[in-house]
Amino acid sequence: MFNSIHEECGVFGIYSEQPADVAASAYYALFALQHRGQESCGIAVNDDGVITCRKGEGLVNDVFKKETLESLGRGKMAVGHVRYGTTGSNGIVNAQPLVVNHIKGTMALAHNGNLTNAAELRTELELNGSIFHTTSDTEVISYIITKERISAPSIEAAVFSAMYRLKGAYSLIIMSPSKLIAVRDPMGFRPLCIGKKNGQIIFASETCALNTLGAEYVRDVRPGEIVVVDKYGMRSITGHCTDGKKSLCVFEFIYFARPDSEIEGCSVHLARRKAGAFLAKQYPVEADVVVGVPDSGLDAALGYAEESGTPYGIGFIKNKYIGRSFIQPTQEQRESDVRIKLNVVPSTIKGKRVVMIDDSIVRGTTSARIVKQLRDAGAKEVHVRISAPPFRHACYFGTDIDSPDTLIANHHSVEEICKIIGADSLGYLSVENVVRLASGCPLDFCTACFTGDYPVAPPKENAKSKFETKISEKKAGGE
Amino acid sequence: MFNSIHEECGVFGIYSEQPADVAASAYYALFALQHRGQESCGIAVNDDGVITCRKGEGLVNDVFKKETLESLGRGKMAVGHVRYGTTGSNGIVNAQPLVVNHIKGTMALAHNGNLTNAAELRTELELNGSIFHTTSDTEVISYIITKERISAPSIEAAVFSAMYRLKGAYSLIIMSPSKLIAVRDPMGFRPLCIGKKNGQIIFASETCALNTLGAEYVRDVRPGEIVVVDKYGMRSITGHCTDGKKSLCVFEFIYFARPDSEIEGCSVHLARRKAGAFLAKQYPVEADVVVGVPDSGLDAALGYAEESGTPYGIGFIKNKYIGRSFIQPTQEQRESDVRIKLNVVPSTIKGKRVVMIDDSIVRGTTSARIVKQLRDAGAKEVHVRISAPPFRHACYFGTDIDSPDTLIANHHSVEEICKIIGADSLGYLSVENVVRLASGCPLDFCTACFTGDYPVAPPKENAKSKFETKISEKKAGGE
Amino acid sequence: MFNSIHEECGVFGIYSEQPADVAASAYYALFALQHRGQESCGIAVNDDGVITCRKGEGLVNDVFKKETLESLGRGKMAVGHVRYGTTGSNGIVNAQPLVVNHIKGTMALAHNGNLTNAAELRTELELNGSIFHTTSDTEVISYIITKERISAPSIEAAVFSAMYRLKGAYSLIIMSPSKLIAVRDPMGFRPLCIGKKNGQIIFASETCALNTLGAEYVRDVRPGEIVVVDKYGMRSITGHCTDGKKSLCVFEFIYFARPDSEIEGCSVHLARRKAGAFLAKQYPVEADVVVGVPDSGLDAALGYAEESGTPYGIGFIKNKYIGRSFIQPTQEQRESDVRIKLNVVPSTIKGKRVVMIDDSIVRGTTSARIVKQLRDAGAKEVHVRISAPPFRHACYFGTDIDSPDTLIANHHSVEEICKIIGADSLGYLSVENVVRLASGCPLDFCTACFTGDYPVAPPKENAKSKFETKISEKKAGGE
Amino acid sequence: MFNSIHEECGVFGIYSEQPADVAASAYYALFALQHRGQESCGIAVNDDGVITCRKGEGLVNDVFKKETLESLGRGKMAVGHVRYGTTGSNGIVNAQPLVVNHIKGTMALAHNGNLTNAAELRTELELNGSIFHTTSDTEVISYIITKERISAPSIEAAVFSAMYRLKGAYSLIIMSPSKLIAVRDPMGFRPLCIGKKNGQIIFASETCALNTLGAEYVRDVRPGEIVVVDKYGMRSITGHCTDGKKSLCVFEFIYFARPDSEIEGCSVHLARRKAGAFLAKQYPVEADVVVGVPDSGLDAALGYAEESGTPYGIGFIKNKYIGRSFIQPTQEQRESDVRIKLNVVPSTIKGKRVVMIDDSIVRGTTSARIVKQLRDAGAKEVHVRISAPPFRHACYFGTDIDSPDTLIANHHSVEEICKIIGADSLGYLSVENVVRLASGCPLDFCTACFTGDYPVAPPKENAKSKFETKISEKKAGGE
Repeated sequence: MFNSIHEECGVFGIYSEQPADVAASAYYALFALQHRGQESCGIAVNDDGVITCRKGEGLVNDVFKKETLESLGRGKMAVGHVRYGTTGSNGIVNAQPLVVNHIKGTMALAHNGNLTNAAELRTELELNGSIFHTTSDTEVISYIITKERISAPSIEAAVFSAMYRLKGAYSLIIMSPSKLIAVRDPMGFRPLCIGKKNGQIIFASETCALNTLGAEYVRDVRPGEIVVVDKYGMRSITGHCTDGKKSLCVFEFIYFARPDSEIEGCSVHLARRKAGAFLAKQYPVEADVVVGVPDSGLDAALGYAEESGTPYGIGFIKNKYIGRSFIQPTQEQRESDVRIKLNVVPSTIKGKRVVMIDDSIVRGTTSARIVKQLRDAGAKEVHVRISAPPFRHACYFGTDIDSPDTLIANHHSVEEICKIIGADSLGYLSVENVVRLASGCPLDFCTACFTGDYPVAPPKENAKSKFETKISEKKAGGE
Repeated sequence: MFNSIHEECGVFGIYSEQPADVAASAYYALFALQHRGQESCGIAVNDDGVITCRKGEGLVNDVFKKETLESLGRGKMAVGHVRYGTTGSNGIVNAQPLVVNHIKGTMALAHNGNLTNAAELRTELELNGSIFHTTSDTEVISYIITKERISAPSIEAAVFSAMYRLKGAYSLIIMSPSKLIAVRDPMGFRPLCIGKKNGQIIFASETCALNTLGAEYVRDVRPGEIVVVDKYGMRSITGHCTDGKKSLCVFEFIYFARPDSEIEGCSVHLARRKAGAFLAKQYPVEADVVVGVPDSGLDAALGYAEESGTPYGIGFIKNKYIGRSFIQPTQEQRESDVRIKLNVVPSTIKGKRVVMIDDSIVRGTTSARIVKQLRDAGAKEVHVRISAPPFRHACYFGTDIDSPDTLIANHHSVEEICKIIGADSLGYLSVENVVRLASGCPLDFCTACFTGDYPVAPPKENAKSKFETKISEKKAGGE
Repeated sequence: MFNSIHEECGVFGIYSEQPADVAASAYYALFALQHRGQESCGIAVNDDGVITCRKGEGLVNDVFKKETLESLGRGKMAVGHVRYGTTGSNGIVNAQPLVVNHIKGTMALAHNGNLTNAAELRTELELNGSIFHTTSDTEVISYIITKERISAPSIEAAVFSAMYRLKGAYSLIIMSPSKLIAVRDPMGFRPLCIGKKNGQIIFASETCALNTLGAEYVRDVRPGEIVVVDKYGMRSITGHCTDGKKSLCVFEFIYFARPDSEIEGCSVHLARRKAGAFLAKQYPVEADVVVGVPDSGLDAALGYAEESGTPYGIGFIKNKYIGRSFIQPTQEQRESDVRIKLNVVPSTIKGKRVVMIDDSIVRGTTSARIVKQLRDAGAKEVHVRISAPPFRHACYFGTDIDSPDTLIANHHSVEEICKIIGADSLGYLSVENVVRLASGCPLDFCTACFTGDYPVAPPKENAKSKFETKISEKKAGGE
Repeated sequence: MFNSIHEECGVFGIYSEQPADVAASAYYALFALQHRGQESCGIAVNDDGVITCRKGEGLVNDVFKKETLESLGRGKMAVGHVRYGTTGSNGIVNAQPLVVNHIKGTMALAHNGNLTNAAELRTELELNGSIFHTTSDTEVISYIITKERISAPSIEAAVFSAMYRLKGAYSLIIMSPSKLIAVRDPMGFRPLCIGKKNGQIIFASETCALNTLGAEYVRDVRPGEIVVVDKYGMRSITGHCTDGKKSLCVFEFIYFARPDSEIEGCSVHLARRKAGAFLAKQYPVEADVVVGVPDSGLDAALGYAEESGTPYGIGFIKNKYIGRSFIQPTQEQRESDVRIKLNVVPSTIKGKRVVMIDDSIVRGTTSARIVKQLRDAGAKEVHVRISAPPFRHACYFGTDIDSPDTLIANHHSVEEICKIIGADSLGYLSVENVVRLASGCPLDFCTACFTGDYPVAPPKENAKSKFETKISEKKAGGE
């Protein structure tokens, strides 16, 4: 809400031995994953090979009314998806699950991630006469799998072959008429976990969705692994699993994931508290209270308070009623400095030296506004601590960060930023510490947005960049 | 409303030399074509190569609110479409125009008709790895054109090649980034006309759309013709135009088209009056009044009255407020014989010998109900005259008739039908006369639904299964 | 649609001996009465004394979805209402039935008509401390009845007393916890009929609603009569019924009512045909075809054709798909002379001398446009005949005519109007003939809008006129 | 969400010297007050005496779209309201502001509270012939004021007289054509504060609304005070202000108000922290972590942790995406123990002795479910502390508590409740301490819901029936 970093998606899949209300399971799970995408959502149910899909723009609450959910019927399998997208884009076209008909039947796909070679694959497909209805990577993936499916003996074999062609980040759920398949790219950029419950197998982006359904956590899908579930049970195809370096997105721990989720067995909440503790060691300061900017700054603030011994305080109230259709203040209202989304708790702040913890500074304007609110409420000093290193580089693996041109850290030193946002001091978590947040995590981390060190080659110059793709959605090429 | 014969579509295209509010032109034209399809509608606008499309389920009135229409912006070209479909089908997926992205850019298609080899073409494409998002012929057509486009020097060349592969009925409007193209199949099954107005070229299924826009009728697109409009003007590609037998759907004159339209220069209103006149000659009867079942029976009733000298009467009032969301009467209500949609004008009927003209008898139940209403209102005799021959065969060229199994004329003689519907006498227009309705029409007519004499081979038995499922789904709607 | 004369309301009531789906009966009846009001509608159901009401802006189709209708439940009584109102007014506030709680319980009212002393009654009530939620006469009526109810022994006694205070036009349906009551003002301005069907008594503005439900017409409510239905049956209170002059609105026959309705036993369709016949006698002309402007001009055109011997023709097609949310053409579109709502059938008109029958000329602009359309379609001569005398005066009894200032007949002679609308000749039905349309009608007619001869004194100058009331809805008086 | 205690309303008023976008101010303020009522909301704008009102069911976000807000226009005054109500009730009828027309003009009212003599006043009014459109106290208040207004020289004089007749709780904003008036009942049950900002005077239920608008807090309206604002400025009428005992609702501090608000100069956040501190002294326990149930338990948990020295933890994640249209789990889903709304953070809880702070136990089922969640997540011990005394009595002053019959504390001892909810120990804040939460508050507190000691006589038995029906309707909602 306060900056422009966005996760692109959350995925969910369920396989039930007996026909069940799998649509409802998907519905409740999508509520738990809603923080991963608020633009559009959808559920596809497989009733004995017949796939019915409902999707739309908006939150789960908006898209799925009682009749909509009921119209999905019962079945043995369901796939669900929540998606983040940009305002103004004709979201319904790109909403998922994507349901396509091909020579061997029907297939539904839900995808979290971003391909780095999508533009090349798309061009190649188009040269062969393929037509595209959407601008999403997911349609490219469905084509690649379909092409392989023609000669492959099974859908999982087609997926296995297709993975040689797909570069970048993808945590995928694929539903064929008789199988549910979960796939994670060989680098493991995005999380994907497995749960079970009374004869049901569940896949989800985060474990909080398993908890919501009362399911038991089994394990995470391995990087490069294909997990297939059908009437014969669950099996694993691991040919793409390697022992090489992995690159799980570290920002999942810092910002995207819910604190009650565990990724690769590591608690997101604890990782954030550890970020706060590291900050307290890196940048100690004498202060009266430590406050976190809700929601993701709260855990780190608690960690900072614990490590430093400075009291923890509740510094802000976030308005939880502001929805998609909120009408932005006009100039007349804006000038009067409206504090609608976030309000300071004056009794926590007044007369205090305040340490304020947030998860990022993108352009700086939001941070400046929050610091000013604290000073207006009577803070004597405001020390800002950021639970991540400075953003400097674009992400090509499924996160929507502002273009490098607009990132404040690319144009200003930490000292300058401190002055710009009006803080008394400013400290960022170091890159050395950021990879130590989730101790015990068996995977390495991708820190490319901080370091520019991309674990997979970014898209070529002449291929359309991610941002250009968005533009091309509106701008059609010459005939 | 009272039977289950349905036209499948109406198409519209406009090319303006100067950027204009072409979306509004399409909007008003679709109102004029609304009778050709009420399930879904859409408009795509081309602003300097960028195609924006808005479509949805429902009438033009429902889908296009002020903001929706405005969001289409201005441009030099627009394509519009109205589509008939079945309740409950996920209509939005099959709504048109279909906008696809291919190797040479973007393309929007609007289609009226039905391919007879769609299933074969689709199988062939799928074997080559194509995926399908819809179940419509239009997506097949867009693929065939796209495949040809790879090697063809221009979009019109691609269309020309594609026409060798497309069998059946198609009146198409295609919009590429820089060209607007109208195409009619070589048999001329469905109408398609050309108009002009102050530097604008307009294509439409019927001339009533030209009148609505104040445009001047130029001529009809010829069977087999490709008409291309771009910045160099309008030109014609006639390689598929032959002098062979044509097969314009005669039911356009009897039922589908609006009476104020002219097809191939022949007035629809006059054709219907002539149908009435033929009936008066074929089946004269002594009577006091001739009434038509609204709306399409009115013109024929006037023709019958004129030819026979029996006075013309206004016999029915049709409720014009019943829309898509009308709640069908429950059994409790139905038993009390609800006359909601059509009501008799008692003062026209009471104590009279009545000739009642309708355009068709499908299952017979609706006709029986109307005859009973006339008797309840005091008609002494009811003589039914049908302004078309009996339906006996399925249509594969874009009309949605009940399956032959349910057509009353396949199971009963005219005498039996007369008894079933409770009439004192019954007469159908002869096949000999039906082809003489539009005298002066340069094309031959398709009368396959009456005669089974298909001008183009119907789909093969084994190829039809997939689509038949869809069609039978449609037939579920009550008569 | 083509002028600004509007009926204000249609009312409906049903009493069933046994609990039944009376909401559905009201729903279907309101469809039949929809032509009397399209702004808002509502249904109130009485289930053993508990009144549930649903109402909203829009057509019956829009307001009543399946769930809305079902939420009304079953019961022994229902009241329904359709209302015409002005665009922009906050319609939901004035939607009916009006349900109020008073000392003796709950009451639902549905009202067709207009009080002439509403402003005085309202002022008197306000002086006594009454507050008003709406700007409608109906709330005034409910107050007057409530005041009488305090001392009256029964609801019908309260209604009887209240009628001494109400001046003007009112056809009312009142539903108390245990009774259904129909009331018509002593002059009989607005129609109100009684029907029956298997243990059900039905009241409705027009008999077409009875036909829709398959009910049998019993008789009309007499001017001044109170008809009460409860568990003891139906009874009549006739103390206000007098033998004095009555004043049934003649425009019900000319324009408002549906042609398949009968008012006071007289067919509306026949009255309109007679209007055409009178016109043929008053203003004969040599011509080739007589056409009526749909919908209300059609019957008169047939009458003119019959009387004159000139052939009857179908001259226009009206677009039935244009709804409330239709987007009016912008200037750019309007200049191109858009014919969206009404289109000429060229084959009927071309090269002919045309007699065109319409029901009124209000400002003249619509008539001029239609005449021009006929000429554009090739009419050699256009002779306009109006099936009513010229409008010159405001109506205070429930019809919404333009203010006298804007009525063309107040500023121009018939010759001038003929020139303004571009006709070759013009003739209005005479006042002498207009009262002879419904021969056999036991009531006299109100012709005040033509003659200014008001059967009941119009509102006093200092009381707010009908149009000022509308304005005052927005403009609040000084504190 | 987790219990059935509900505040009934939030009110807002603004007076601007110059015409301004007061609708937008009201809109943003209602967002800040949204926690006080989520069923319906409304805004009335006064533009030079003309009052325009828009209201509807749902959140501010749902009811006010851009066009709705714009349709209110600019003006010098606005009144806003948020209201709590029950699902299924026909909320729109009772939505506020209530706009009524009376003899001296128009008046808009927004009301927070509950009259104890509403039923008697209503009966008296009905006996005099008044009719009621709503079931709300607010309509009674508007009648009482209107009756006084007839003889009173000004609206404020009428309000002054009316206050002699109104018993119970009311914080009112009244907007006449030229004045904005704030009124608080003589006992001061509900809060009401005054703010100012550049020539604007603002009234609101809580100071958080002032902060949102960037306005400065001036003071609270005194119990019994009438504050009038018009073009002559702000003035106070204090005749009803007494030095007697006051009775501000203490639950405002415990639950209703936002922690960033200050009531009578006392911080709500600090009061809650003090509640936690008192609990730590009353019921100390050896534990590893203190967690609060969001949202209102968080502050008290922090206070408990500070006082006891036990570490504060983040124990729960509340799903913020669940809205009004959330579909409740079916039995099939419910059995699988769905944790959708609240989820435990396992890493905070696992292996720990937990102190859990909540603000109330109503029926006990929710508390039991939360305790079980903690145990499932591995808590070794769960000690529940409630930041208020046990609920035992109905509230007649504007809070919607379950009927005494269903309150667990009326049927069970604390020990029994502890066992029922499955806790290891349980402690409630004492009544002695609850009145010490807001030290420095100049008013006394109402603690009737804990003690049954009503500061104003509750409604008489026989008078309550009508409203009790309504209330019992409300209680239907699950805990």
